[in-house]
Order: sequence, then structure tokens, then C-alpha cells
Amino acid sequence: MPKVDLNSIEQTNRTGYPPPYDKDVAGRWYRRVGQATGLIDIGVSHAVLEPGAWSSQRHWHDGEDEFLVMVAGEAVLVEDDGRTTLRAGDCAAWPKGTGNGHHLINESDADCVFVVVGGGTNTGGGYSDIDMLFTPDGKYTHKDGTPYDAQRL
Amino acid sequence: MPKVDLNSIEQTNRTGYPPPYDKDVAGRWYRRVGQATGLIDIGVSHAVLEPGAWSSQRHWHDGEDEFLVMVAGEAVLVEDDGRTTLRAGDCAAWPKGTGNGHHLINESDADCVFVVVGGGTNTGGGYSDIDMLFTPDGKYTHKDGTPYDAQRL
Repeated sequence: MPKVDLNSIEQTNRTGYPPPYDKDVAGRWYRRVGQATGLIDIGVSHAVLEPGAWSSQRHWHDGEDEFLVMVAGEAVLVEDDGRTTLRAGDCAAWPKGTGNGHHLINESDADCVFVVVGGGTNTGGGYSDIDMLFTPDGKYTHKDGTPYDAQRL
Repeated sequence: MPKVDLNSIEQTNRTGYPPPYDKDVAGRWYRRVGQATGLIDIGVSHAVLEPGAWSSQRHWHDGEDEFLVMVAGEAVLVEDDGRTTLRAGDCAAWPKGTGNGHHLINESDADCVFVVVGGGTNTGGGYSDIDMLFTPDGKYTHKDGTPYDAQRL
């Protein structure tokens, strides 16, 4: 297979987040590149964030490692320990199970582009700034276990 | 963890390839970023190829998916089905087990930079253009199984 033909892969801003948490990612346009290219053991998303968009709610994975490569533009990485600007060529790594929630916010006035890769076993995880967890079977719950009426994509 | 501090991670051009196959990758300078940042379920390398350098001998993995993001400069991706130039922002995906050997050659006159991520189980693999395989236990052999006196890094 030669280089990935990104234009042939559907780009979507769909999210399974229940309202009002869906609004923050409305300007996140992503392609499920790993799935489209036949990868099984790693998941890969190629994402474009419009100005103001978030990459996700600030989250962590209990059982999956994540690695991000900034490809173009810039965004602010927010974690428990503060904010860091990422620019083209910068990388960020999130080992599974640390509980250190992270996301990117495009605070610039131009689109930014990144690729994020994940691997491991989905054993759930959670969201640092809101009352929400995700479960291995694709549900969202409050932190007390009460389900949301929403399905993770 | 904020963005990866690449400068804090050792950059090396070491290879376990037996001669004369080591020469082609002498200008490949890589950092084991995944290992250095505590990732377990995915492997991540950040690599700089000097002009003329190869990313590896042209190879495939039987049990591991690979995904590459070109970060800067350009290189030629060589596979069974031909040559494709990769530039900053381009991606390539190699599902495990296809046997389609691939590598990058920097045919430009400037350094190029890429990040490659792998995940899955090392069940061995091989090299398309030379008489060599690699085994799950880190050895190199000829295609008839005769070992090389070399240890995979």
C-alpha cells in the first residue's frame, strides 16, 4: 500500500458525547485512518481542529497508550499539570493508566492538524473536568455509575 | 506529561544489521520515544534520515501493524508495487502480515524527519531484497534458517 490517500477516507465530526459535551468537539474533523487502511493492533486518527475546537473532552485511558504527532498549525495541550503549546513536529505521549487527563484546544485562528495513535486494551477511562466515565462496552456513565443515554463512537 | 522533550532522548544510529546491510542505515538517527515516555502497548520511533540514508532494509512484520507520519522534508517510500514520494503531513500504513516490504530512502539533499508507530505481537518478519529474516527472539537468519552472527536491536 502506498501512502495513505486521506481524501479517500471519510472525514466526520460525529461524536457520541451526550449534550452539552458534544458542542466542544463540533469543530473536530477526523478520519479513522487505521480502520480504513486495515490496521488491527493500533488505532489511528487523523484530525483537523477548526479554531476554537477541542480534540475531545479532557480524558484518560485506563488500558490504552496514546501518542500524538502535531502535523500542522498549533494547539494548546491541557493536562493536570498545565498547558503546553504544540506546533508542527511536536509529539506528546500518554501512557495508559496514569489518570492524567489531556486534550488539545485550538486557540489559534487557523486550522491545526494532528495524528493520534492508540494501542492496548480498552478497559475504560474517564473525563477530568466533567462528571463522565467511559466503559469498555462503549457506554458513558456519570462518575457514580448512572448511565448517560449515549453511545461512544 | 507535557509534550515530548525530544532533545532529552538519546538519538542513535546503532543497528543490529549484519554487514554489509548496516551501511545503508548509517545515516538514520532515531530516538526510541515510546520507551522513553513509558509507553508499553505501542512502540514509537522518531527518526531523522540524512541524505542518502535508508529507514531500514526493505522489510515487513508478520504480527505487527505499522503507521508512519512524515514530519519534515521528503523521502521515497519503496514497496513491492513501486515508489511513492512522502512529504510533510503524508502518512503510510502497513497492516501486519501482508509481506509487502517497505522502507524509506532519503533521495533529497536535506534531512527528513518521520515518526513511526508499531503495535501487535512480534512474530518475526523478513526483508524483501536481501537473504534475511528476523525472528521473534531477536535473531537474524538467512531465508533457509541459517543464523547470522548478529542481534536485532
